[in-house]
Parts: sequence; structure tokens; C-alpha cells
Amino acid sequence: MAADYPAPFLHLVRELRRLPGVGPRSAERIALWLLSHRDAHPERLGTALHEAAASIVPCGKCGFFSTTGLCEICSQPSRHGREICVVEQATDILPIERSGAFHGLYHSLGGRLAPLDHVGPEQLRIEPLLERIRTEQPGEIILALSADVEGEATTNYLTGVLAPLGIPVTRIARGLPAGGGLEHADQLTLQRALGGRHPA
Amino acid sequence: MAADYPAPFLHLVRELRRLPGVGPRSAERIALWLLSHRDAHPERLGTALHEAAASIVPCGKCGFFSTTGLCEICSQPSRHGREICVVEQATDILPIERSGAFHGLYHSLGGRLAPLDHVGPEQLRIEPLLERIRTEQPGEIILALSADVEGEATTNYLTGVLAPLGIPVTRIARGLPAGGGLEHADQLTLQRALGGRHPA
Repeated sequence: MAADYPAPFLHLVRELRRLPGVGPRSAERIALWLLSHRDAHPERLGTALHEAAASIVPCGKCGFFSTTGLCEICSQPSRHGREICVVEQATDILPIERSGAFHGLYHSLGGRLAPLDHVGPEQLRIEPLLERIRTEQPGEIILALSADVEGEATTNYLTGVLAPLGIPVTRIARGLPAGGGLEHADQLTLQRALGGRHPA
Repeated sequence: MAADYPAPFLHLVRELRRLPGVGPRSAERIALWLLSHRDAHPERLGTALHEAAASIVPCGKCGFFSTTGLCEICSQPSRHGREICVVEQATDILPIERSGAFHGLYHSLGGRLAPLDHVGPEQLRIEPLLERIRTEQPGEIILALSADVEGEATTNYLTGVLAPLGIPVTRIARGLPAGGGLEHADQLTLQRALGGRHPA
């Protein structure tokens, strides 16, 4: 009978295979490295996973990652009372933060409208957003959702919901991406880039 | 000040980046998935890592992965007294095993001769191999080392050490790989394929 790896090894490979971008071969390669390389210290990764899983919770206000119930962003007093940037997912926050172009607060919806997946307005964090707007009185609401069909639908829905509040509501621009030549742009991107033209 | 992820998150990303084939971007992507996908269960991977690290030890005879001190292969009585296939690393054993072409025992050297890296014969598991040959009396020693300079040097060294024992010593064939066309073969592979020709 052909031999196989011991059960704890195969169990580790199965768990590694679940990670995004890790196929059967790389899962086995990673497990072999972890268990046979002298500097691998697999227990360090194991501990880091346990600690992250146990300590990281969504920020009670914006939904970003936090260890204290209120995230680093919502804890900065200099950001209070300014713009609130609405995003689909908590994972959308740091890319905007790293762009350096925004210094206000965020609000993650926890998804976007997707009727086919049974995601309606009541599944999103829209009510907490309205509550925040009432108490925090931000100067502007910036809708920074995906530039696809579901993102557009969610943006349109939110625009309607937020209009009665009397606060400026904007949406991020769509157009040619940085470094993107015209010859690579699709039809819709070009339509939006032209439609969004402004004085040079 | 631009915000960043909480410390336990960044620690997890650093540990993930150490894995082979995982760059900075995929480490962050994997960490985000682990901590924000509802079916991710990061603690399961953490536990699998701890259990594998704690329970897997090298087989006392061949060096393969084992949980009991003696691996699944060395524990099969049907394999005893047959060929011993000598490989560089424990990770080389299962590929041979899965080929279905070998049903004997293995012996991992734990490396190969590499004078520039200060790996000499005394750093390899050569003495335990000689001890095994004396006690187990195998019918043949098959040298299945890498087909590169250091693998060849190690094979030649072992051939000299094993010759006085009076047991047949063979080395695996070098030649055209399966599915490999002649137009893709390098010069050395073709030289070896020609040199190793046999009646059709």
C-alpha cells in the first residue's frame, strides 16, 4: 500500500487549501516547508492566528478592524465631525486610507444590495449609518462603492435615503484609471470619463 | 496620521509573509479573508498548525514524517529486507511513493554534499545508512538524488562509500522527462539521454 503523510500533516494541508489563492500543490508545499524548514516555526503562525482571531472585532462605529471595540480611525479626535466615507466592506477602508487623499471617518455597509443573493437594505448597516449622521453631524457623506452594477444600485439607493437629511452627498469619480491608456479602456469607462469631464 | 490595521492583524500578516510563495499582497489578502470571511475559522488553521508542529517527528529509521517515531513506510513488514532508496530530503519520499514504481524502504540523507555551505559527509545521515545496511541486509541500494552538480557529487561519494559492502548499488536514470519534446530538452539532458540509451 502506498504510504501517505501522517494525519496531522494532511489535516494541516486541508486547512491551508482553504486559504484564497492556495491550491492543492502550494498547500502541500507550504506544509512541507512549515514542518521541515528549521526556521519555519509553524507554532508562531498558529499562535498569531489564534491571537488575531480572538482579539480582532469589528469597530462598533465604522466596522473596521479593531481590538478595543472602537478602531484606530474612529478614536482620532481630529477626524470627528468631518466627512463620512461610506464603503462596502471593512477591507475597502485601508486602501482609501493609504491613498492619503481622505482624512475623515468611514462607514462600512457590510456588503451591497444584491437581490439575487437575498441581500436587501435591511441586511446592510444603513440604519446605523443614519443614526451616526444624526448624532455626529458630518459635513459630507462620500459614497465610495464599487463601480459595477450592484455598487451603482447601492449608491443610487443610498442617495435616495440620504437626500432628506439635508447633508451634501457625493460619489467618487469614475474615469480612466491612473496609468491606463485610452486603448486599454473599455467602452463604459470611456463613457464615464467623458461624462465626468471638467475644466482643465 | 494614516491609520493601519491593529497590531495582531499586522503580526498575522508578517507570519503569513514568511510562507513560501506568499508575497506581501497575498499575505494581506489571506489575513483579510481569514478575519472577515464568515466561514474562514482562522482558529482551525491555528490549531492544525500547533497540532502538526507538536506531533510530527522524523522517522527514527528513514527520516520521513511520522507521529510515532517510526513512519508508516518503515512500519510495513512487507517492505523489510528489500531495496533501500536513498534520497536527499524527507520531502523527496512521497513523490517516489506516489509514482507507484517502488515498494521498498527509504533513507533520507537530510541534505547533500555542499562544501560551499559547509555540508560535508559528517553532516549527512550516512553513518545511520551504513548501520541500517549492516542490520537490515537490503537487496539493493538505489541512489535517487538530484540530477544537478551537488546531487551528482553526493551520488559519486556514496557509490564509493557503499562499494565495499558488496551490495548492488544503482542510481536512477537521467534522460528526457515524460512529455518533454526534444526541442525543449537542454544539452546536458540530451547528452544523458543518449548516453543512457538501451535496446528498444
